[in-house]
Amino acid sequence: MMKLLCTYDYGESVFKTWETLGYSVTYIPEQALHEGVELESYEVLICYSPFKQMAIERLKNLRYIILSSIGFDQVPDLLMQRPEVTIINNQGGYSPPMGEWIVMMLLMGFKRALRLVQYDNQRQWKLETDLLEMTNKNIVFLGTGTIAQEAAKRLQGFECNIIGINTSGNQVAHFTRCYSWEDLNPQLAQADALVCCLPLTDKTHHLLSRDFFNVLKDTCIFINISRGAVIDDLALQSALGEGRFSFVALDVFEEEPLCTSSPYWQFEQVLVTSHQSWVSEMRNLRRLEGIQAHLESIISGKPLKHIVNKERGY
Amino acid sequence: MMKLLCTYDYGESVFKTWETLGYSVTYIPEQALHEGVELESYEVLICYSPFKQMAIERLKNLRYIILSSIGFDQVPDLLMQRPEVTIINNQGGYSPPMGEWIVMMLLMGFKRALRLVQYDNQRQWKLETDLLEMTNKNIVFLGTGTIAQEAAKRLQGFECNIIGINTSGNQVAHFTRCYSWEDLNPQLAQADALVCCLPLTDKTHHLLSRDFFNVLKDTCIFINISRGAVIDDLALQSALGEGRFSFVALDVFEEEPLCTSSPYWQFEQVLVTSHQSWVSEMRNLRRLEGIQAHLESIISGKPLKHIVNKERGY
Repeated sequence: MMKLLCTYDYGESVFKTWETLGYSVTYIPEQALHEGVELESYEVLICYSPFKQMAIERLKNLRYIILSSIGFDQVPDLLMQRPEVTIINNQGGYSPPMGEWIVMMLLMGFKRALRLVQYDNQRQWKLETDLLEMTNKNIVFLGTGTIAQEAAKRLQGFECNIIGINTSGNQVAHFTRCYSWEDLNPQLAQADALVCCLPLTDKTHHLLSRDFFNVLKDTCIFINISRGAVIDDLALQSALGEGRFSFVALDVFEEEPLCTSSPYWQFEQVLVTSHQSWVSEMRNLRRLEGIQAHLESIISGKPLKHIVNKERGY
Repeated sequence: MMKLLCTYDYGESVFKTWETLGYSVTYIPEQALHEGVELESYEVLICYSPFKQMAIERLKNLRYIILSSIGFDQVPDLLMQRPEVTIINNQGGYSPPMGEWIVMMLLMGFKRALRLVQYDNQRQWKLETDLLEMTNKNIVFLGTGTIAQEAAKRLQGFECNIIGINTSGNQVAHFTRCYSWEDLNPQLAQADALVCCLPLTDKTHHLLSRDFFNVLKDTCIFINISRGAVIDDLALQSALGEGRFSFVALDVFEEEPLCTSSPYWQFEQVLVTSHQSWVSEMRNLRRLEGIQAHLESIISGKPLKHIVNKERGY
């Protein structure tokens, strides 16, 4: 029996299924994983982000971390650097609702939804004549992973140009055309909307700087659903202060929760949401199906899916 | 030369093009078409809704009305009943932005966008866990004309069931399945969202009554982009008062502008907008291309497109 520590209460019947696979399952919620908890025997850890409060140096026998998140910047270096520890993320597990979220925010931007909601709140009947349609618009995605792909798939019927920027410049399903980072600037300059789907790595940290934003049209729409730290906040806030961007939807921030004094709340063209583009009634089912498949592969020695590349950072 | 009266200022170069086709063009804006204006000689009228203020009995030589709208309930019976007057509407001219509008409202409903915007306005960081995705949802369209088709086309990538209800029960492109009105109730009962794309006719007037709404799930989303008078307002308002519907997007009303005392403004789950789902920067181009084609057909005796069926009512 492999010893497994799970920080989610998936319920007795799920845990029993795992035990029939060959695991001895212990459930401890993340907030209860304080320094005093015995961790020496666990080989598999299923969790999101318990690392700050738990005594990670006690995880002497750890072989696998199965994360419920796609990002893994919460995993401490001490664990990342251990070559015998394989880290598996929830790649694709939240991509369908996040793809939908991106389409919603694009439409809300082009159709001035914040203003429409405001008029409704004010009981104001007022025909706005500057609503735009998506036909022929250039939608530029930074990153062409599963989230961007799910968005691009859902944009097929809108007759827009779906542009992807990725490391290789390789073509990806559902995109009209993909380019490598060397060819970024002409695409940025033509973008009617920019969607950030980048993983947070050393290379992408504060990548979206003033120089970057300066290439965009003044009226560009900007959507970030990846990680807050890919943005240089001061650069974005100063561009917003100059009235740039017709709509900005930010779901992620370098520090979360976003503090009430953050300048982001004050801009009329910015919609701040609470890191929730991934939320869906199907999230538990998809995550559970993923975990089940990983546990079956581990015990039977089959090749593992969704292993994170520690060097590349995603 | 056919005498043509146009109520829009399409500019000199457009009017000259029409004159080279064989029309003598007069431009008078709708609000200037009061009773004293000479109308006897015009054979073609290009307009939206000047009929209340103008002396329609003076239009003795009228042969064609080219409407900028899709609906034609604004055309008075006196003109509708003249067999020699052909009425042409702007069928399809506003359908792409309205299709986009429907997808936006569906997403805003499933993802609780009104609440998300409210939290943003209140500078509140609050993770909402009841956001839904569209995957596997049943989206029922009443009517399968060009607007519904443009919406259905844009829903292809969302992996939802796109159900159409129409008179014949014939299958229509982009819909998962279409049914006739006899098979309506089982579809209504399963609907996660109901989208009203019905024309206003004698048969559809106040069709969406209490009996109709009672068949729906309590949490159903409801979107109306067609005409307000297809709804029995008292029935919908009493259902809303009981907390039914998770989101309702109303863009059209029996009386427009909607008065500030209308109960619709007060319901938290209702988004009232000002009859503007049709607005797009491409509206003038599309309308003008349509008018140009109609004028060419009229002068050359070719078959006309988008003639309204006076008996059927759409």
